[in-house]
Amino acid sequence: MSGPLTGFRVLDLSRVLSGPIATSLLSDQGAEVIKVEPLGGEMVRAMGGGGLTAGFLAANHGKKSIALDLHTEAGVEVVKRLASTADVFVQNFRPGAIEGMGLGADVICTLNPRILFVSISGFGEKGPYAHKRVYDPVIQALSGLADLQAADAEDRPRMVRTVIPDKTTGLTAAQAITAGLLARERTGRGQHIKVAMLDVMISYLWPEGLVGLTTVGDEAKRVPRGQRSRDLVYQTTDGYITAGAMSNKEWRGMCKALDRPELAEDPRFKNTADRFRNSAVRLELTAEVLLTKTSAEWLERLDANEVPCAPILSRPEAIAQEQVKVNELIYEYDHPGLGRVRQPRPAAQFMDTPVNLRPLAPRLGEHGKAILSEAGFSSAEVEQLIEAGTMAAGAVPDAD
Amino acid sequence: MSGPLTGFRVLDLSRVLSGPIATSLLSDQGAEVIKVEPLGGEMVRAMGGGGLTAGFLAANHGKKSIALDLHTEAGVEVVKRLASTADVFVQNFRPGAIEGMGLGADVICTLNPRILFVSISGFGEKGPYAHKRVYDPVIQALSGLADLQAADAEDRPRMVRTVIPDKTTGLTAAQAITAGLLARERTGRGQHIKVAMLDVMISYLWPEGLVGLTTVGDEAKRVPRGQRSRDLVYQTTDGYITAGAMSNKEWRGMCKALDRPELAEDPRFKNTADRFRNSAVRLELTAEVLLTKTSAEWLERLDANEVPCAPILSRPEAIAQEQVKVNELIYEYDHPGLGRVRQPRPAAQFMDTPVNLRPLAPRLGEHGKAILSEAGFSSAEVEQLIEAGTMAAGAVPDAD
Repeated sequence: MSGPLTGFRVLDLSRVLSGPIATSLLSDQGAEVIKVEPLGGEMVRAMGGGGLTAGFLAANHGKKSIALDLHTEAGVEVVKRLASTADVFVQNFRPGAIEGMGLGADVICTLNPRILFVSISGFGEKGPYAHKRVYDPVIQALSGLADLQAADAEDRPRMVRTVIPDKTTGLTAAQAITAGLLARERTGRGQHIKVAMLDVMISYLWPEGLVGLTTVGDEAKRVPRGQRSRDLVYQTTDGYITAGAMSNKEWRGMCKALDRPELAEDPRFKNTADRFRNSAVRLELTAEVLLTKTSAEWLERLDANEVPCAPILSRPEAIAQEQVKVNELIYEYDHPGLGRVRQPRPAAQFMDTPVNLRPLAPRLGEHGKAILSEAGFSSAEVEQLIEAGTMAAGAVPDAD
Repeated sequence: MSGPLTGFRVLDLSRVLSGPIATSLLSDQGAEVIKVEPLGGEMVRAMGGGGLTAGFLAANHGKKSIALDLHTEAGVEVVKRLASTADVFVQNFRPGAIEGMGLGADVICTLNPRILFVSISGFGEKGPYAHKRVYDPVIQALSGLADLQAADAEDRPRMVRTVIPDKTTGLTAAQAITAGLLARERTGRGQHIKVAMLDVMISYLWPEGLVGLTTVGDEAKRVPRGQRSRDLVYQTTDGYITAGAMSNKEWRGMCKALDRPELAEDPRFKNTADRFRNSAVRLELTAEVLLTKTSAEWLERLDANEVPCAPILSRPEAIAQEQVKVNELIYEYDHPGLGRVRQPRPAAQFMDTPVNLRPLAPRLGEHGKAILSEAGFSSAEVEQLIEAGTMAAGAVPDAD
């Protein structure tokens, strides 16, 4: 057994990021993921040349690809036959679209009562935004993430510069699918699982990010724009570091590391509450001192005094750092069409069911014939689908 | 059956956020979670008065609490006996600590070969940072998150103002635990699962956030500080909105909504590549126009022209918006000691195994006697543990 989800089959009609990231984790953990793409390929393939981009690779390595025209009855029939042997069916079309294709939850779950039918959407099926276009900034704007990224009540809202909502939705959906498969072991039944990005972001942010809204009443006053927690980025003579002292012990360590023993005696910073009340002046004093030496010098002193700290690494530095090497997190390999590339292994490590890396991304339609043949389609049926233009004939070669 | 994980028992020794958030999701989905706390209570209880804070509630509602002195042999024995009937054992002490207590993976898995032993750490067990204190900004600094949050190569690194690493680690661990339980249905065996926060953040950021590092070679030049994707926050006469046009159709819609038809013909913005190349001037022009009307006016015009857009909501507005009400995401209730409070339901919805909300947070040691009694401890044994000071006698009343 390689990977905890070995033996499960996922039929994946989802596109872009939220769905593909969910099924990518399942694939990494051993599930067979069949990616059903339109004849022209999933749109992410087009964001770059040749149909194989780094973005596509990140979310789709290890999957199989079949390219089908779902606007035809024959294409829809193929999906239904594939669904009859799948454990999971994933789709993230806009609400109503999958039903319009004749592939709604009712149809698929009747066909295969053991299947999990997973609907990922921006906002759910009803309500004012149900049919709204979902771009990541839209969810950041509506979930409170852009609000809390402001420095304080006077600052404007700010976006986080990576697609937190898409990625967190993928992770949430992967967990829900796994839980649904586990429940099926008890009940014998599949079910419909629904995941809306707005719901995901609000419940993800809730502990800590939205926790100020827990007590009912007077919210607008109690929760002004921005997050009080300080952006702990300090400039040194040659770069940036982060350092923070929460406990009294850590504060004393900080004062020692900074060679400012008088600060440890300063009544403004006596305990956590004092330091919090006078944080502006405290952080300014800290920043002034840290500006006078190199990052390496400060990190050594802070470490020696047991103050939590770290260099702020560039992204190339982040993946090259010693700890990442020791953890064997990133692996390098040659990919046809892309050359020498790297990917991270999945973060969670299973000692008894280690994952089996399957690092290649499928070319469009690469596995179509094999998938149909395994699903019991005759050669004549396969040829007919290709001749009618319902299925792509096979792998589309990479463009230069 | 209520909740897909009904029937599973989790023994949770983890503290603060990463572990408690993982087990909170399992609890929300029906698992029985027994929180093992030190006699003084988990440290998050102390961040506020009375041992019941909003932060504690968010990550610990629905769990049971037993307060034990794990520095004693008797306390360790209690944990071992509880582990013999548990499905999952979760801990996030620093590497080596749990082994020092005599409760390492070898001990627990020998005692109960069906158990999943889950170790959540900052950096894993080996390497230069294995014993480093893990604060959220430390992981943001080392994972590249602070680097990509810079506006551009000239800007300094910036932190995201909510604990993304802690929360994403919780979600990743919850999925891994669920996958481990599913694998056990096949193998009959438990196993050791390891999750390191640094690994989680790098693999979480990889699609999109770190994807520029996929191709090997020349990374430092290709991936400068900051993320090119623009912070799409626009000021209006009365607030802030987000709006974005990716496709040509959306751009034409944007020009129509802004009542600037000449921009649609402007050769600088003809197609996606042109608009990307000239994004600075395009976004400036857009911002100038949007500054002239109210948010409501613009959103109506943008919506009418099918341009993805949204108001940027404050956090109180985010939870009060109509879509959140329609989704029945937030529920209100009375909590002893806290008064009227609200929480979000878990984001993923299971149509056949709906979750059963268990919204109360345990008081310290509230379920100790009941847990031991159910585990087969005699009344005499329980009394002896209490008399010896190994276990707290029962619920500690909330302070005022």
